[in-house]
Amino acid sequence: MALKVLVPRTVPGELPDAPDGVTFARYPSRGPVPDEHLDAEGLLVWGAGREVLSGFASTLPRLRWVQTLAAGPDAVLSAGFAPDVALCSGRGLHDGPVAEHALAMTLAAVRRVDRWIEARDASEWRPSLRREVDPEDPRTDPFTLNGARVLIWGFGSIAARLAPLYTALGAHVTGVATTAGERHGYPVVASSDIEAQLPRTDILVMILPTLDSTHHALDAQLLALLPPHAWLVNVGRGTTVDEAALDAALRSGRLAGAALDVFETEPLPAESPLWTAPNLFLTPHIAGNRPLGWQELFTDNCRRLFAGEPLRNLVTR
Amino acid sequence: MALKVLVPRTVPGELPDAPDGVTFARYPSRGPVPDEHLDAEGLLVWGAGREVLSGFASTLPRLRWVQTLAAGPDAVLSAGFAPDVALCSGRGLHDGPVAEHALAMTLAAVRRVDRWIEARDASEWRPSLRREVDPEDPRTDPFTLNGARVLIWGFGSIAARLAPLYTALGAHVTGVATTAGERHGYPVVASSDIEAQLPRTDILVMILPTLDSTHHALDAQLLALLPPHAWLVNVGRGTTVDEAALDAALRSGRLAGAALDVFETEPLPAESPLWTAPNLFLTPHIAGNRPLGWQELFTDNCRRLFAGEPLRNLVTR
Repeated sequence: MALKVLVPRTVPGELPDAPDGVTFARYPSRGPVPDEHLDAEGLLVWGAGREVLSGFASTLPRLRWVQTLAAGPDAVLSAGFAPDVALCSGRGLHDGPVAEHALAMTLAAVRRVDRWIEARDASEWRPSLRREVDPEDPRTDPFTLNGARVLIWGFGSIAARLAPLYTALGAHVTGVATTAGERHGYPVVASSDIEAQLPRTDILVMILPTLDSTHHALDAQLLALLPPHAWLVNVGRGTTVDEAALDAALRSGRLAGAALDVFETEPLPAESPLWTAPNLFLTPHIAGNRPLGWQELFTDNCRRLFAGEPLRNLVTR
Repeated sequence: MALKVLVPRTVPGELPDAPDGVTFARYPSRGPVPDEHLDAEGLLVWGAGREVLSGFASTLPRLRWVQTLAAGPDAVLSAGFAPDVALCSGRGLHDGPVAEHALAMTLAAVRRVDRWIEARDASEWRPSLRREVDPEDPRTDPFTLNGARVLIWGFGSIAARLAPLYTALGAHVTGVATTAGERHGYPVVASSDIEAQLPRTDILVMILPTLDSTHHALDAQLLALLPPHAWLVNVGRGTTVDEAALDAALRSGRLAGAALDVFETEPLPAESPLWTAPNLFLTPHIAGNRPLGWQELFTDNCRRLFAGEPLRNLVTR
């Protein structure tokens, strides 16, 4: 009997052909699953919210496997799928898009694109946008990545794409990961040693996943170690930054600025003070919106499930 | 007798030691040159306006050599220096900074940083910033450089730094130069053949110098050949674009947008329609504001002048 796998009506790009022994059944992206397909054993999800996912968890009794195209598995992990349902992440599918967004955010911060727009809106030619470097301390007001010290916290496959871009622009990149060593050709320090790195960091880029161990990883104490000219870029998960502490650092000027794509609560609530924090670039979790090459991962995992082989990108829980 | 070379009081970074046989005399960056130094034979200029340069041209009778730190020699060329005064450009000193600015402008355009700021100022979580790609025509509304076709017009040393950055982000780069061939590892078409390239260009990056032959190189006719989703980035010289034609293309929506660091007249006059053209990023000629390694070029040319050797970066006129 064929393995039935549910596929949302809207997928990014083209839906591939189903592998031998597998049939695809479409469902509306926001649910619910049509009655005749409640017997599905596999489920592809993309862009579904928490409630929709919980609905899937409670209405598909024969479900054995969920493939999300999101890089981080936090949403499917917290949706309440039974313990014997295999959850697979979209790790790796977003490396290029997220790296591109992180670079766009970093350059927007360094070159102060917000001030370009301010000056344009005021019809003002402002040569002061051409900030002069203080020869005594060339990094106090960085306008360039050339010579900048970039610290990337979370040094996986996204960092492997991003770090060489910074390097090509003349920056010095150091990684932070669970264990020290050399990865992707860059020096990596252990996260337990991050305190020594922060005071000499110009740009801190966070690409951490949501885990118990990463909750508020960047807190008031670590934020205070960054120099006042430093910028924070977060394209990982919002849970990894203490937003109240970040807001305070921005408002007091103890931190030069931040560029955030992710937030503790998404959508960012209307009452969040971050909306009006100074020197803040903010995007609505759009960095990794284009899973690239997901078709290969998805069909291969379909085939593996059908054949009883180990699944790729399986999330441990 | 020592060769006296005038050096502005404000230079970017540190002033090097004068080579043997050479003395440096400082002058206020906006002139005039102190009376006791009007006998100088060499002159370093940085950031001086047209009038200041003309003042130098008419008050330094023994002048033999002018070294500008600007990448383009147009300002010193038009200042009225006597024909036997050797003019040397800062070609090459700005490659990194200009490439970085061009990339910042390109990413600001592609990821629409202006819309991030709009949404933030409205305290609005706008997932529509995550533009979906139309599978029928993935390039009609580009949100990514991955797969984008970038045409760089003016394929010299700045392009040599910039093109690999685009490539690393997944773009396909073609160059345009006086003669066709392969340069810096990229295919280059002759400028006489540019018409064939424009209709398949997503992002046109201009890095042309001011020359008689480049005046309004991008005119209404060529602009009309770009697809309506295309963006223009200009970090070369403003004289190379017909601004009236560009303004019309932006206002009619025949061009998606433009990011300009240079203008036909600088500062951009208050009455220029470009201030209010839609989808325009505008910076006040700040791309190449950090000559890197100028000290080596400058002192080497001092030494060469003293020794009677050929000067580097000599401008033909």
